Amino acid sequence: MRWFVILGGVLAGALILTIGLLVGHFAIPKESGPAVIKDVDEAFIQQVMSEIDNKEIENRLRELTKKPHMAATSGDEELVQLILNRWKDAMTGLDNATVDRYDVFLSIPDPANPNSVTVVTENGTVNFTSRLTEKNYTADQLDTDVVKPYAAYAPPGTPKGKLVYANQGTMKDYELLAKEVNLTGTIAITRYGGEGRAGKAINGAKFGVIGVIVYTDPKDINDGKMQEHETYPNSWYLPPSGVERGSFNGYFGDPLTPYYPAKDFTYRIKESEIEGIPPIPTQPIGFEDAENLICQLDGPVAPTAWQGSFNCDYRFGPGFRNESSFPMNSDVQVNVYNQRVINSSANVMGIIRGSVEPDRYVMYGNHRDSWVHGAIDPSSGTAVMLEITRIVGKMLKENRWRPRRSIIFCSWGAEEFGLIGSTEFTEEYYSKLRDRAVAYINVDISVFANATLRAQGTPAAQNVIFAAAKQVKIPTNSSITVYENWQRHFNRTSSLHGLVPSLGTLGAGSDYAPFLHYLGITSMDLAYTYDRSKTSARIYPAYHTAYDTFDYAAKFIDPGFTSHQTVARTAGNVLLRLADSLIIPLDLTDYGETLERFYNSAKAELGVTLEQQKISLEPLKTVIDRFISAAKAINQEIDQVKKEVNPSPLKVRMLNDQLMLLERAFLDPRAFPDKYYYSHVIWASKSSNIATFPGLADAYAKAVSNSSLGWDNVNKHLTIVIQAIGNAAATLEVVI
Amino acid sequence: MRWFVILGGVLAGALILTIGLLVGHFAIPKESGPAVIKDVDEAFIQQVMSEIDNKEIENRLRELTKKPHMAATSGDEELVQLILNRWKDAMTGLDNATVDRYDVFLSIPDPANPNSVTVVTENGTVNFTSRLTEKNYTADQLDTDVVKPYAAYAPPGTPKGKLVYANQGTMKDYELLAKEVNLTGTIAITRYGGEGRAGKAINGAKFGVIGVIVYTDPKDINDGKMQEHETYPNSWYLPPSGVERGSFNGYFGDPLTPYYPAKDFTYRIKESEIEGIPPIPTQPIGFEDAENLICQLDGPVAPTAWQGSFNCDYRFGPGFRNESSFPMNSDVQVNVYNQRVINSSANVMGIIRGSVEPDRYVMYGNHRDSWVHGAIDPSSGTAVMLEITRIVGKMLKENRWRPRRSIIFCSWGAEEFGLIGSTEFTEEYYSKLRDRAVAYINVDISVFANATLRAQGTPAAQNVIFAAAKQVKIPTNSSITVYENWQRHFNRTSSLHGLVPSLGTLGAGSDYAPFLHYLGITSMDLAYTYDRSKTSARIYPAYHTAYDTFDYAAKFIDPGFTSHQTVARTAGNVLLRLADSLIIPLDLTDYGETLERFYNSAKAELGVTLEQQKISLEPLKTVIDRFISAAKAINQEIDQVKKEVNPSPLKVRMLNDQLMLLERAFLDPRAFPDKYYYSHVIWASKSSNIATFPGLADAYAKAVSNSSLGWDNVNKHLTIVIQAIGNAAATLEVVI
Repeated sequence: MRWFVILGGVLAGALILTIGLLVGHFAIPKESGPAVIKDVDEAFIQQVMSEIDNKEIENRLRELTKKPHMAATSGDEELVQLILNRWKDAMTGLDNATVDRYDVFLSIPDPANPNSVTVVTENGTVNFTSRLTEKNYTADQLDTDVVKPYAAYAPPGTPKGKLVYANQGTMKDYELLAKEVNLTGTIAITRYGGEGRAGKAINGAKFGVIGVIVYTDPKDINDGKMQEHETYPNSWYLPPSGVERGSFNGYFGDPLTPYYPAKDFTYRIKESEIEGIPPIPTQPIGFEDAENLICQLDGPVAPTAWQGSFNCDYRFGPGFRNESSFPMNSDVQVNVYNQRVINSSANVMGIIRGSVEPDRYVMYGNHRDSWVHGAIDPSSGTAVMLEITRIVGKMLKENRWRPRRSIIFCSWGAEEFGLIGSTEFTEEYYSKLRDRAVAYINVDISVFANATLRAQGTPAAQNVIFAAAKQVKIPTNSSITVYENWQRHFNRTSSLHGLVPSLGTLGAGSDYAPFLHYLGITSMDLAYTYDRSKTSARIYPAYHTAYDTFDYAAKFIDPGFTSHQTVARTAGNVLLRLADSLIIPLDLTDYGETLERFYNSAKAELGVTLEQQKISLEPLKTVIDRFISAAKAINQEIDQVKKEVNPSPLKVRMLNDQLMLLERAFLDPRAFPDKYYYSHVIWASKSSNIATFPGLADAYAKAVSNSSLGWDNVNKHLTIVIQAIGNAAATLEVVI
Repeated sequence: MRWFVILGGVLAGALILTIGLLVGHFAIPKESGPAVIKDVDEAFIQQVMSEIDNKEIENRLRELTKKPHMAATSGDEELVQLILNRWKDAMTGLDNATVDRYDVFLSIPDPANPNSVTVVTENGTVNFTSRLTEKNYTADQLDTDVVKPYAAYAPPGTPKGKLVYANQGTMKDYELLAKEVNLTGTIAITRYGGEGRAGKAINGAKFGVIGVIVYTDPKDINDGKMQEHETYPNSWYLPPSGVERGSFNGYFGDPLTPYYPAKDFTYRIKESEIEGIPPIPTQPIGFEDAENLICQLDGPVAPTAWQGSFNCDYRFGPGFRNESSFPMNSDVQVNVYNQRVINSSANVMGIIRGSVEPDRYVMYGNHRDSWVHGAIDPSSGTAVMLEITRIVGKMLKENRWRPRRSIIFCSWGAEEFGLIGSTEFTEEYYSKLRDRAVAYINVDISVFANATLRAQGTPAAQNVIFAAAKQVKIPTNSSITVYENWQRHFNRTSSLHGLVPSLGTLGAGSDYAPFLHYLGITSMDLAYTYDRSKTSARIYPAYHTAYDTFDYAAKFIDPGFTSHQTVARTAGNVLLRLADSLIIPLDLTDYGETLERFYNSAKAELGVTLEQQKISLEPLKTVIDRFISAAKAINQEIDQVKKEVNPSPLKVRMLNDQLMLLERAFLDPRAFPDKYYYSHVIWASKSSNIATFPGLADAYAKAVSNSSLGWDNVNKHLTIVIQAIGNAAATLEVVI
């Protein structure tokens, strides 16, 4: 060939090689590229949702509710093994599953010596004894493992005195009652609601009350229905003998080891140092027995607001009327034989290791322990969790999927006694969770009723919950989304989004509490719930009774288990978005909206008085504006990165770190020194009704009611809030 | 051409293209590749070190020490501008520099009404007045901005009483003295050392003492030298009239705003609520005046350990001997007119944005404020910092370098009053620093003396300090490294490394304290220091006096400024390694060694007694072993990653997060509720001399001396330590 042909060939070859090099280098992403910058796979989410099976959930619930499984009993241990085996299953299991155990302080009734409430004559004859067990209707109630009704953590004792009716047992109730009746040495009967369980006894003791009875008024739980033919098994309403059990521990976590995991090496405080439990014997009874007591009370008629559904005037007492069925001058005696024990409680943890960011944890949990069979509370949630793990486990084992971030499924122990398993977990793994946890999803009772989704969470979580709810259809109409239906039931006008479903706030009612309040982890709680136009029940009527059974769930709460399925789809969708999205799908402008709303409430409700005290809310406004600007700016940055074909994995990680850690910035461990675990300045518990920052609201209420000294405390809590929001803004602002 | 030629050409072209594609894709790293996985550039470090210039440091120090620059004075503000201008310099400046201001609570003497100590006769005649100012030798002392000697935060007052000598003013000293003398209503003269400044007055007040005088004994500071011809300007020793000023605030941070930045919105506690400051008037004097008082005291001769260098017996008092130069029955009066003010104090922050991980901060700081001219304290450190910023700034502006991580240089205000500027900074930016700070390097006094490096830090920092010290030569002999020389002066046998220089521990003596104790950030402090075979001076003699001048530094501390240069090279080397290393150069096996040593001390010194109390140290041993295993494992993982040609940037980030956050895991904000800011379970302050975990050591000492109740407290602190080490181990263990 001629030289120029050779040269041409060489040149052409060089050109082609160059093109190849350039294309290979620039246009074809590195092998690691796709994985590290892969976003959530929408088709995969659809696939998972479509595989969620109501029949499987039903079967799972049947399996979970065969036996009562109160914390740390043999029934509970059987479920530990059941869940462990499922999560270790070779075909549908997770990467790993482990059991974490804690030796926790529990309170149980003496099996040999049942608690009761009795009416005792002057000469000591027992004239009436409250039912020791709930009436049998479906054989479930006959199970020997059904724990007899009791108030966990109420001290043993047999105080005797004249009966008084104290409404809900709030401080205000006792104050009012004490104006009419000398409460010293009395036994107070109170109805559930309006005040924490323990509070009814703690408040009463301050007035000299020596024993407390608690019952559920049909007005509060049964829409007034009282007759057996109107109640379970004929409807979802509570039978007359049904008794709500519960923990009468006002705080959470193992009572003997605050802030430290209840391990063998851990220092225990003295029992006498436990705070927040009843100082006097307390016992719950059914409304059948309560009616017998209340309707025979003497004394002035209580105010209208105190009246319940019984067909009589609710009177203050003290004691029974002379014309009552009890002998003259009869006393009421509360007989409590509760025992305190230290038992081993297990958390079961199921783990899927993240493919790209194994050190980022998306957590999903529910407690496992119930009071009795616990079909709704908590097994409806556990059945949903196990259905989600079955499907993602299968995908995992078939190598069809591995999440970007690690997922940890949690089956908590001893929640009913005060969120003990989850709290001990957050104590034991405090640093790790603080540094790595992206979010915590809680699905405890998954279906209270089958009308609509109900979601609670911090504002950061609203975005991902909405996104999921828009992709799920309601069970009864395949053209309506969960989002639309939810908006129909509960809505509000957002300054950012217009009309939206209203996301509830998180208190301390389930295992999200230590994650949110102690660790500052973005948390949420999902469930299906009531049509409030159809019932005013405080909660589903079989709650914490021997009637919360599979039969009850299948017949009255969710026939067909399609609401369970809907919750599983929604929660699963949220979970996968959090685990797989390239950018964590939390939107912090929604937090800004809430902060602004809190500010506006403070301004409207406290502003004038604060001005008189020369306390300015301006710095609060300034810092909230700063937060809002920072949230907008980071959203713009995120939009930018989302548009990039090949975003830098480290840039993505930096943004995600800001999103993940935002909630942590609101923590101040010194803000509420007298409230165990409450460190989250925006969501701590509060007594005031003003919808603003809790420390500020409570300090304000104290200052108004007490003295000029208290205004310093208002200033202090204003500083705490401003500093926390400033920290949060700094977390979102440009990194340096 | 023939078809086969065409085909051949096409095939060849395809082959070449394929080769190009393959080579381009696999063999040529992505553009982002080299940057994100680039390790520290050793040649660059050498370059920076070689450019560090002793003459520049000297010039800088001259400039910084022209005027006294006490916190928040005009001299201080001039330096704020000087540093700001340097860091904003177009040729040698940083990316950005800002000023952060806080309104802080300071204590200053009344310029119109000088403090003094007087001897007053029974009829009120003043017979002796201590010097109001230090004697002039070099004209520096005549500057009108020289603050007269005083004890900052001592309350004003003019208590009068019989003089007693209380040695160092420790509790033990007062206890011993109180056995001989009724201390009620007395004035105690104490020497510096052995007890914090404030402690001398706080302790004394408990015994009825009403005023305190403090002086520096020539034995403690001057190797016994007392004559003018032996002292500055004839040597480095303190002249007879020299007085050590100082903050008599036992805690740190703005006293009115504990835990919150002293901003305009911040709540201030009441002055009466400030803890840790003297309850009684206190005043420092020179040893010339102190000799006059002490050598004329009456009463029994004090123990040998209490004797100082004066040519007389140190007696307890009370009061002067009849044959003294003072009239019979003379009293001593402490005249303090200190004023409390709120002044604006500035931190100057200089920023270099990281190229790869801008959200990771390596911090380097020193305070700017002095008591007088502050040539050594702190300007020797500031001169070193400015020399480092000059060189890296130049490299930056010339686009020759940008660190992997962000670097923040900090010029703190109001350190002398109690680490105020740095503490307010850590309060204001708490969350950001907790989430992002890699390490804090402090170089306060850079040269105490010119014999050897002295480094303090947490064990995690040992590795990087050693690495740097091995690369720097000592000023006097270019064949000896700083490391070798250091090891000759201070060494220990490490169970991991054999004979090594001994790294000191960090107390709360400079601005690293809030970083370490409050935030749990790996911290270190570097300086050149004494040959301890040549002097026993407590500190360099001109410390906190009007003699700490450029002249003093240039003539007696570091002629030629080569020790400054050596410190600048070492600190600069450490800084660049922390900022530029792919894997953060902290070695956590060194932490394991320390924990083990602490355990061994506890076992040896407390073990038998604890066993008698049925308190086992086994769980502590177990958790330390767990930590050690985890540290070893992560080191192996790091070694693995270092061997990889193309390590995953996210994998590197994950490992670095573990290294960065390790120190944070040792924090427990509830461990020491009565010690402001001290949250680091391993390094909190302690009273006990036992070299073990501070909470355990102090709880043990209390339990032994007090009562059986105290053993619960020992158990509690054991739990705290075990939990903290468990958290730390979890941070290092496999991420999920």
